[in-house]
Amino acid sequence: MNLNDMIQAPGEWMRGSGPEAEIVISSRVRLARNVRGFHFITRMDEAERLACETHIRNQIQASGVALPGAYFPLHEMEAVDRKVLVERHLISKEHEDGTHPRGVAVSQDESVSIMVNEEDHIRLQVLQSGFQLQDAWKLCGKVDDQLESCLEYAFSPQLGYLTACPTNVGTGVRVSVMLHLPALVLTRHIEKVFQAVSKINLAVRGLYGEGTEASGHFYQISNQVTLGRSEIEIVNNVETVIPMIVRYEHEARQTLLAKDRKRLEDRVWRAFGMLKYAQLLPSDESMMLLSFVRMGVQLGLLKDMTLRDVNDLFVYTQPAHLQKLCGGPLEPNERDMRRARYVREKLEHLKL
Amino acid sequence: MNLNDMIQAPGEWMRGSGPEAEIVISSRVRLARNVRGFHFITRMDEAERLACETHIRNQIQASGVALPGAYFPLHEMEAVDRKVLVERHLISKEHEDGTHPRGVAVSQDESVSIMVNEEDHIRLQVLQSGFQLQDAWKLCGKVDDQLESCLEYAFSPQLGYLTACPTNVGTGVRVSVMLHLPALVLTRHIEKVFQAVSKINLAVRGLYGEGTEASGHFYQISNQVTLGRSEIEIVNNVETVIPMIVRYEHEARQTLLAKDRKRLEDRVWRAFGMLKYAQLLPSDESMMLLSFVRMGVQLGLLKDMTLRDVNDLFVYTQPAHLQKLCGGPLEPNERDMRRARYVREKLEHLKL
Repeated sequence: MNLNDMIQAPGEWMRGSGPEAEIVISSRVRLARNVRGFHFITRMDEAERLACETHIRNQIQASGVALPGAYFPLHEMEAVDRKVLVERHLISKEHEDGTHPRGVAVSQDESVSIMVNEEDHIRLQVLQSGFQLQDAWKLCGKVDDQLESCLEYAFSPQLGYLTACPTNVGTGVRVSVMLHLPALVLTRHIEKVFQAVSKINLAVRGLYGEGTEASGHFYQISNQVTLGRSEIEIVNNVETVIPMIVRYEHEARQTLLAKDRKRLEDRVWRAFGMLKYAQLLPSDESMMLLSFVRMGVQLGLLKDMTLRDVNDLFVYTQPAHLQKLCGGPLEPNERDMRRARYVREKLEHLKL
Repeated sequence: MNLNDMIQAPGEWMRGSGPEAEIVISSRVRLARNVRGFHFITRMDEAERLACETHIRNQIQASGVALPGAYFPLHEMEAVDRKVLVERHLISKEHEDGTHPRGVAVSQDESVSIMVNEEDHIRLQVLQSGFQLQDAWKLCGKVDDQLESCLEYAFSPQLGYLTACPTNVGTGVRVSVMLHLPALVLTRHIEKVFQAVSKINLAVRGLYGEGTEASGHFYQISNQVTLGRSEIEIVNNVETVIPMIVRYEHEARQTLLAKDRKRLEDRVWRAFGMLKYAQLLPSDESMMLLSFVRMGVQLGLLKDMTLRDVNDLFVYTQPAHLQKLCGGPLEPNERDMRRARYVREKLEHLKL
């Protein structure tokens, strides 16, 4: 599997299937692990970083963890290719931006990715479409066991798994769920949801994680505390709150329909009209328009489209995917033109 | 001819034909006349106003001026019907808003309208599509002669025709041309054109005359001075300047195409997409979107549409026309819904 093959189809989490897929885009469990015998990343020199990356890479490949898949050595790749991995949520933005020896192992269906030499030696992530945290947690544990059988983790009986950043010490678990919440934004109830969520020590972030904007009305809900709690407590904590937010979003959609159906239809159809006819489509605008269209599909207003159609557009209109599809780097203006053309072609066959 | 028949087809000036019709919507010549033996309108009591209206109406109908057509007694009509006449540019807003006995005689093809008891006893207007001021002026003279043969005008050998407002004394002629100038607005050259125009004593106004906004990038250019100049001088003065403005607008469109064709196409197609899919369409927005579409048709960007298609949409999406088409008065929100539906239905058959 290489990047050019990979880009031909969306990964597991983009399938638009799974429980509650209308609102829950994906469920993610991430573990932070470090390998005994190496310094933390920030304390290493370049030679040790290379040695650490080589060691972990070799062990993963030798023992067939998360295979059949691919290992991408990021420091040897072009910027646009690294960006593709970010857009597919296989690596973090920090991992994309690094310059030292580092990489990522990705399973065939992209549900498992193992970042090597990110903030920690190992960041293991399982990402699945829809609301299936328990499944993701189980798969994560399985891969973690596989890794532990070939690598000696840095572990303290008192503190748990040792991590570069103290906020991850303990279980090293981060659990997050990506939600699509346009109606809570439109009804201005989103802030209330966030306040409630933060009271139970969960964090809200944008589409690409920490410090990013909630473009396209996408929000990540994740745990903040890893120390002093068992892994399953953390998973359960997030799992309990998600159905409530999902219900609020559904209720907000029904409120919008009941109070001013025509206004909502207007938003949805205008978004569709823009996507269908625009000749220049900036990335941010495209996300926002697709968000309204996605809600329209879920509400049955746009009958000839599926969630999968919209999810595909979300993925392939992102800058790096678009440039890969077009066969090379593009100037921003050219990008907006190609994005508009791509979307028009995808929507052309619809009887709308 | 009654109002319900009239509304089925656009009037002469809305045909979208005539010289320079791509930019010049219509040419208009208006004469202000008063009848000897009656006070000016503002000095009359109600009884004299009724007598004046009856007298002029009888004379017009008896002598068959501007016939076959119809006479509309405005004070006996419903508000929405008077509004239809404004939207068809057959009466002024002031004439619509009056409460005293007054009316308008309209020729079958709507090129001639004779307002009775507006600011003056008689306001004779000839309105033709495209740039044909000379034809409009000739027809206006002909109808003026017909009127003069059955009515005795108030005329002073020194001052010329006497009018209620001193700014109209003399010839009582107002000549105006309605232009569609979107590219001059987009390139921000419109102000320069206006400054040049006002230096030669011409005025610039919005779509419905004095004090109205230039919605949909429509502008009326007209003479300001009527005293001390012959009628033909006034007509020629306006006629000379119009081809220059038309050329500037054409040049501005070519500049937009040359400098950033894609940006212009984007504007035009987005406007088309909005019109095609919006479920709520306020009047002002509709005008603006149609304006971009109209320019797109002229530039050959929207190949399956004609200027006549767009001009029809301009006419029939106006509030009063829309309400007449829908068979009765509508709340503003309902209006926006019906307007959107009307436009969607009209655009549906287009292969775009």
